[in-house]
Amino acid sequence: MQFCNRIIPTRSQYAEAADHRCHCRSGHTGRCDEFPFLRHLQSVDKQVADKIKRDATMTTGAAWKSADAGPNRILRWVMLLSDEELASYGINMADLKPGVVAKLREKAADYDSCILVAAKLAWLVYQMEDAPQPTIEIKQYLEELFGPMIPSSTCCVICRLPLNYGLFSMAARGKAAIETCHKNPRMHNPENVGFGHRECNIAQGAKTLDEFYEWIRDILGRAHR
Amino acid sequence: MQFCNRIIPTRSQYAEAADHRCHCRSGHTGRCDEFPFLRHLQSVDKQVADKIKRDATMTTGAAWKSADAGPNRILRWVMLLSDEELASYGINMADLKPGVVAKLREKAADYDSCILVAAKLAWLVYQMEDAPQPTIEIKQYLEELFGPMIPSSTCCVICRLPLNYGLFSMAARGKAAIETCHKNPRMHNPENVGFGHRECNIAQGAKTLDEFYEWIRDILGRAHR
Repeated sequence: MQFCNRIIPTRSQYAEAADHRCHCRSGHTGRCDEFPFLRHLQSVDKQVADKIKRDATMTTGAAWKSADAGPNRILRWVMLLSDEELASYGINMADLKPGVVAKLREKAADYDSCILVAAKLAWLVYQMEDAPQPTIEIKQYLEELFGPMIPSSTCCVICRLPLNYGLFSMAARGKAAIETCHKNPRMHNPENVGFGHRECNIAQGAKTLDEFYEWIRDILGRAHR
Repeated sequence: MQFCNRIIPTRSQYAEAADHRCHCRSGHTGRCDEFPFLRHLQSVDKQVADKIKRDATMTTGAAWKSADAGPNRILRWVMLLSDEELASYGINMADLKPGVVAKLREKAADYDSCILVAAKLAWLVYQMEDAPQPTIEIKQYLEELFGPMIPSSTCCVICRLPLNYGLFSMAARGKAAIETCHKNPRMHNPENVGFGHRECNIAQGAKTLDEFYEWIRDILGRAHR
């Protein structure tokens, strides 16, 4: 798909790190929009649309809440900048523990990947059990990017059980029951990203999905001999 | 084993909830001691001895750090008291979220179970790879309670790999690499308690060990069909 790609003005303090661009189809009418594929979801379930935007574009780390935790949520592409460039934004990586720096740098991703991750997540949401139905325009847009949408086909990346849209509004101790997952936690791109149960994502931890499966296969082998 | 069982005076604000008692052998000489089986470990590695005492006798919850998290660390037997009795200590269970109350109540255990858990953990520590060697007196004491000690035989409760004593001093983001684990997270007694890798304990989550094995078996079944 050819995007419009016109620059969308932003007042973000990180505006210089990457231009925000319009992702409507090239030659579209109406106003430019960075996330046109989220328009419908935004109108029917703002919470889920906001979660997609946030998980696609921001690093996480809300659990660290310690003095040396570093930026709690920051645009993933800002984490591509050098330590020197980050210092000009008041982020002093040298003040953070090495493990925290590594964690933040791992979550870095370029702007285009983040936008495509958001689109992929929208495509997956619409294929969940009990999900709202997209407008025809958005369905066509997403199918052009990622292929045909099959109702109730979105499964947890990790345990492979079908995911029900209702899980988005179920939360335990302030944590949603569905999380954005990475087959390889160190790669943020549409092929590598999906949704999973919170407990599955926690169990996978920092492992790749292949490493996780190998790990639990070995555990079962030892537990039952 | 017959314990001395003399009451040990305590200045704890929770003194009325349970008498602290001497666990030296009945008829012992020398001063009374609530944790005589930790004396040697206390002298060679205070950090590990303190961890055993803490995990055996206190509820956990350090990760919750929110306003509604409730008592962060509290004696497990205090959590056996009624809401009314707790209120007299300034702990108002009604102010906590139901999930937090359930979590705290799950970690309740009577005083005697907690002491025996501490002894069991000491017995397991001495059987770790590269562990310090107990004095003969303590070895006999622990073996009388839990059976013969076999060097390097202590494995992670969950993944069943041998645990190296050195893991106690390895920590990532302030969290020790070895944690006290429960085969059934809702039962705190010597049969049900052991040590495990932090990542294994996190993966097990709130499941019993049997439920965890069943869960990962099912995941592998779906992932590889």
